[in-house]
Amino acid sequence: MFGSKSETGAAGPGIVLAVDLGGTHLRGAAVDRSGNVHHRFKQPTPQAEKADDIVQAIIAAARGSGTTVISALSVAVPGTINFQKGAVVSTPNVPCLDGFPLATVLKRELECPVILENDANAAAVGEMWQGAGRGHSTIVCLTLGTGVGGGIILDGKVWRGADGSAAEIGHMSVNPFGGVKCPCGSHDCLEVYASATAIVRQARERLPHYPSSRLQMDEELTSEKVYRAGVEGDELALEVFKVMGVYLGAGLASLINVINPEIVIIGGGAADGWELFEKHMRQEVIDRDFPLPAALVKIVRAECGDDAGLLGAAHLAFTAERGDNLTR
Amino acid sequence: MFGSKSETGAAGPGIVLAVDLGGTHLRGAAVDRSGNVHHRFKQPTPQAEKADDIVQAIIAAARGSGTTVISALSVAVPGTINFQKGAVVSTPNVPCLDGFPLATVLKRELECPVILENDANAAAVGEMWQGAGRGHSTIVCLTLGTGVGGGIILDGKVWRGADGSAAEIGHMSVNPFGGVKCPCGSHDCLEVYASATAIVRQARERLPHYPSSRLQMDEELTSEKVYRAGVEGDELALEVFKVMGVYLGAGLASLINVINPEIVIIGGGAADGWELFEKHMRQEVIDRDFPLPAALVKIVRAECGDDAGLLGAAHLAFTAERGDNLTR
Repeated sequence: MFGSKSETGAAGPGIVLAVDLGGTHLRGAAVDRSGNVHHRFKQPTPQAEKADDIVQAIIAAARGSGTTVISALSVAVPGTINFQKGAVVSTPNVPCLDGFPLATVLKRELECPVILENDANAAAVGEMWQGAGRGHSTIVCLTLGTGVGGGIILDGKVWRGADGSAAEIGHMSVNPFGGVKCPCGSHDCLEVYASATAIVRQARERLPHYPSSRLQMDEELTSEKVYRAGVEGDELALEVFKVMGVYLGAGLASLINVINPEIVIIGGGAADGWELFEKHMRQEVIDRDFPLPAALVKIVRAECGDDAGLLGAAHLAFTAERGDNLTR
Repeated sequence: MFGSKSETGAAGPGIVLAVDLGGTHLRGAAVDRSGNVHHRFKQPTPQAEKADDIVQAIIAAARGSGTTVISALSVAVPGTINFQKGAVVSTPNVPCLDGFPLATVLKRELECPVILENDANAAAVGEMWQGAGRGHSTIVCLTLGTGVGGGIILDGKVWRGADGSAAEIGHMSVNPFGGVKCPCGSHDCLEVYASATAIVRQARERLPHYPSSRLQMDEELTSEKVYRAGVEGDELALEVFKVMGVYLGAGLASLINVINPEIVIIGGGAADGWELFEKHMRQEVIDRDFPLPAALVKIVRAECGDDAGLLGAAHLAFTAERGDNLTR
């Protein structure tokens, strides 16, 4: 049942319902304290004009999830969160939630503690808890998908910044005068060189110079097709992943010199090109970073896949000490 | 007298002797809890081959400083520090200290708590305590001198990273393929575009294109001369400070999107060119950053001048809760 709030406000020994609210899909699962995932669900995110439609979809998904004892609900949101207010500040893919006090409303409806977290931050926590970051407390996590998301964990805590906007790693400037526009409104962000979208763009732009590339005739290019061509030795595809690796490495080099993390974890669909971009990425880090932080840091692939955000959201609920929006 | 260690190991209500160990000068002062600076001293840093020569110079300076009651000694060092061990890891300008347990040795000699801190971190703390950062707890501080130093304060604490190497803001990559070598061994770091050294280099490189520049005949260019020419409208000098502002702004834009600080504080001698680079720097931040963190962050000049490091070192001693190497 909902409402089994423990005295501390943290999730009790039971089950947390974790929801990953994407622009396309609303996914969720019940997660126990050991990180086991039960009762998954996935449905289209309502293309809603009213925040209440999203609220009702989450409530229906929660009540229909098959779980009977829920200690807390934890929602990963693709946008900027105000933790003190339990509100969404800005979420470009679900714009009806901009400014909406989502945690407060869900808490009232479900009568249990509700936590909101940025989805990339949640993924970083998930990797720390159950993935590649186990045993580490200072972690930089990148998710290379349609865009590039970032999460930063410092001494075991999510670093959210002064107003919840931190860790926008995908929007570091990695090439001041490249002239490639970014969806964020800037240009030459890491995202336009190291995302799935970037892989396709870079391949298209280079096609005229590689008339024998197998990608030449494909009008529906995807990052996966570019990757498969690269694995088979296609020179265009290899060049695209080299460029990706160089910019990713330059961005990581800056992050490593500034943050000095123990580990950098790279996930998301475009990380599947790892074997093609890894050496170029690592070379930039070696060439650009101070020896000490470069020797310390591990740079590895993520391990939790699509579950990173759900696991992280759940862990945040289990470790919240009080209130709805505190992490450990 | 030395040795008045309080029960907690923190500096008592008395006076801290703060030392700023530079490659050229060893400066110091007694600092009280209100941030008043007494009994300054300044002497050449011994060009020593043995760490003990530096130790003896600090001890002599401390004993000759005219202060009679010292609660702690706090030393700002231009390099990487290991706080747990109270040791210098690497300090390129005073290489005899590499690997030396400076805090431990000074503590034994002076019989009082000894704190070591990286000089740029200490400067950031100084600005937080007595300068432009008063009232703020999430601060990025840059010192534009011969090189570019950085200090990061998160929720009131110095962020030192996983092994003390963090906040090397001057060594973020701001132009992946510019081809300008950096003393750190990398290339195209912020330091080679936004330091006093960079101002002189950029002016020299552009001289052939500005035959009427007043800087043309000056064989001993300094950043100050370039600045003065800029104030008087010299086009070469104005171009140099514009380039500096653009790269500085691009670097800050990345930092602001990643750290989401309340305030960025810019000090050091090359910050004297503020009126010439400010608008270019701010424009890059506006163009590149997300609206929320860009609207939040203040970007201001430092206020403590050369005393920032001494004040910060002293404050760290006053707020240390236990041991020699803990900040608040």
